[in-house]
Amino acid sequence: MANYFSNFAALMENIFTERDLRIFTEKVFLAIGCSGDHAKLAADVLIRSDLRGIDSHGVARLSGYVRLWEAGRINPAPDIRVIHDTPSTAVVDGDQGLGLVVAPKAMEIAMEKAEKVGTGWVSVKNSNHFGIAGYHTLMAVEKDMIGIAMTNASPLVAPTFAVERMLGTNPIAVAIPTDHEPTFVADMATTTAANGKLEILQRTDQDAPVGWVQNKEGQPSKDPHELKKGGALLPLGGDREHGSHKGYALGAIVDIFSAVFSGANYGPWAPPFVSFLPLPDDRVGEGLGHFMGAMRIDAFRPAGEFKNHMDNWIRRFRKTAPVDGKKVLIPGDPEREMESVRATEGIPLNDNVVKDLQEVANKLRISFPGP
Amino acid sequence: MANYFSNFAALMENIFTERDLRIFTEKVFLAIGCSGDHAKLAADVLIRSDLRGIDSHGVARLSGYVRLWEAGRINPAPDIRVIHDTPSTAVVDGDQGLGLVVAPKAMEIAMEKAEKVGTGWVSVKNSNHFGIAGYHTLMAVEKDMIGIAMTNASPLVAPTFAVERMLGTNPIAVAIPTDHEPTFVADMATTTAANGKLEILQRTDQDAPVGWVQNKEGQPSKDPHELKKGGALLPLGGDREHGSHKGYALGAIVDIFSAVFSGANYGPWAPPFVSFLPLPDDRVGEGLGHFMGAMRIDAFRPAGEFKNHMDNWIRRFRKTAPVDGKKVLIPGDPEREMESVRATEGIPLNDNVVKDLQEVANKLRISFPGP
Repeated sequence: MANYFSNFAALMENIFTERDLRIFTEKVFLAIGCSGDHAKLAADVLIRSDLRGIDSHGVARLSGYVRLWEAGRINPAPDIRVIHDTPSTAVVDGDQGLGLVVAPKAMEIAMEKAEKVGTGWVSVKNSNHFGIAGYHTLMAVEKDMIGIAMTNASPLVAPTFAVERMLGTNPIAVAIPTDHEPTFVADMATTTAANGKLEILQRTDQDAPVGWVQNKEGQPSKDPHELKKGGALLPLGGDREHGSHKGYALGAIVDIFSAVFSGANYGPWAPPFVSFLPLPDDRVGEGLGHFMGAMRIDAFRPAGEFKNHMDNWIRRFRKTAPVDGKKVLIPGDPEREMESVRATEGIPLNDNVVKDLQEVANKLRISFPGP
Repeated sequence: MANYFSNFAALMENIFTERDLRIFTEKVFLAIGCSGDHAKLAADVLIRSDLRGIDSHGVARLSGYVRLWEAGRINPAPDIRVIHDTPSTAVVDGDQGLGLVVAPKAMEIAMEKAEKVGTGWVSVKNSNHFGIAGYHTLMAVEKDMIGIAMTNASPLVAPTFAVERMLGTNPIAVAIPTDHEPTFVADMATTTAANGKLEILQRTDQDAPVGWVQNKEGQPSKDPHELKKGGALLPLGGDREHGSHKGYALGAIVDIFSAVFSGANYGPWAPPFVSFLPLPDDRVGEGLGHFMGAMRIDAFRPAGEFKNHMDNWIRRFRKTAPVDGKKVLIPGDPEREMESVRATEGIPLNDNVVKDLQEVANKLRISFPGP
């Protein structure tokens, strides 16, 4: 980890403290009209992403949210409300709010349902990019619940045998409570690789492995810039022979649970994150969709008993006989290790992100902290 | 399809009618002590699998179930009961019954919960191999619900960076109701390829694509017989660079929902399907585990409205611009097309399966139908 960090630091010129970045990010959200509570929450989702090493979903996106607000596509003071519910389900209208605020609210509603009837399931429409899915699932773990979060997203992914982009990277996250062992947190795009990984290759001018992207004719490509040339990301599996029809099906399920259940835009109609792309004219719903779930552990089994078995599960999997020189990880390990490093050593940002944040600061007349 | 079928028929000597195979299979289950209802249901699960073209999970497994019964590992007259529940959840003890019978019962309980509070979620212990996951999810679709089914299974899969087999092929199935379009049914192992696909390569002596299996040192292999030599199946993704940590995480989630929630055996402790392998001495639970979910469509949105949008989703995805000479499919298309062919033209079985069924017939003194 130390090694990773120093390599990374060599690439990145600027290391910021968590505290400075957090205060700055809150100020940005306040400046676009968010309430104090909303600004604090939205900043927490972004900073947590940077701490956990998911740089593509942290403050690197802050200018994107601001541009969506400038374009009138984000409502900084949304009236987030339940428009339909049953004892274990709800549909939430996000009122064009920041997904960073709408999604935690939806998870709270799911958890309240779970408190009463064992589980809660909330589909959300009229929202926006919600940050890292894992953040929302970890809210449930604090209450001895399993947390589940999904979202649809801007269409960048070609289904198996397609040249056209029809789905987003549509992540699925699941967090599961434990006793002494660290929380199990899986947080994954349903593509072979998330867009953030391609961005790293673009910056360092490296080839992408075959199976990550295809060109606009649908042929395998190693060019990390392929998306700008009409190419597409590939579903987990990469090609039919390696199971891409499964990645495609998973992405489709996320799309349907998030957007067809709630009345959001689905598939190729999902609104783009970048403000310079227009919204489709023939929209089939409102905004972007999410799907959140909370399952109370003791709705199935006494929580203590379950968590002891989770500890046993994790310890046994850590002891799996490894390939020479490797180690078997538990989902969530890399992010947790990164979080403990960055919480003390700071968050490295690359030059482009720093420049971007300085522009946001100037535009909104906020002071920008030095690295 | 006709072409596929004739190629397939050339390989397979024997074509049986659905009716003959169904009657025979029912008689086998009756002969091992199942009630009339249970025998009918178990036979239906297996025959439906053969009809849908999932040959590895149909009557090809019948002798395996009989051997488990002979070994005292299947209780033909189980008392399947709820041992814990809340309004939206239940844990079911399968009493060592056939998974083919326990799983549909668990799905019924999930559907009853969904009828009352919007969704129902049932984790099952003390069960056995449940056939194709898709069968159980389709029960929910008939009631305007989304059906979800998962199961853990005999450990054959090495996590990312491991040489040891720790997880089963742990499938996930999701079926989603539609209006005029056919039902969306995703039914997938969380491995690159299911074991049944390897068996086809073994019979026809062909290489497996890289990414399906590894040898006992954890190196990539094309040998479809690798499992018998201490190798392992690989999680969806194939290797770390292509996202196998995501397939591993999905398989782990299925394992935990199915077995840690319910009190079944998880991970490497999952009981083997083949009766010649002993059960582990240090068991951590009872039998195999499943996880079933049912979500009432109108717990989220009026069912008619939802199904219209699903039709629109499917029609739009069918029209996706394809790679030259290809066609974009909807999950469930291949199985549905096969089902319509085999329902009229019959079910082809290979020589080994026929021999196996004849032995079962002799052992249990049942007449075996001619092809």
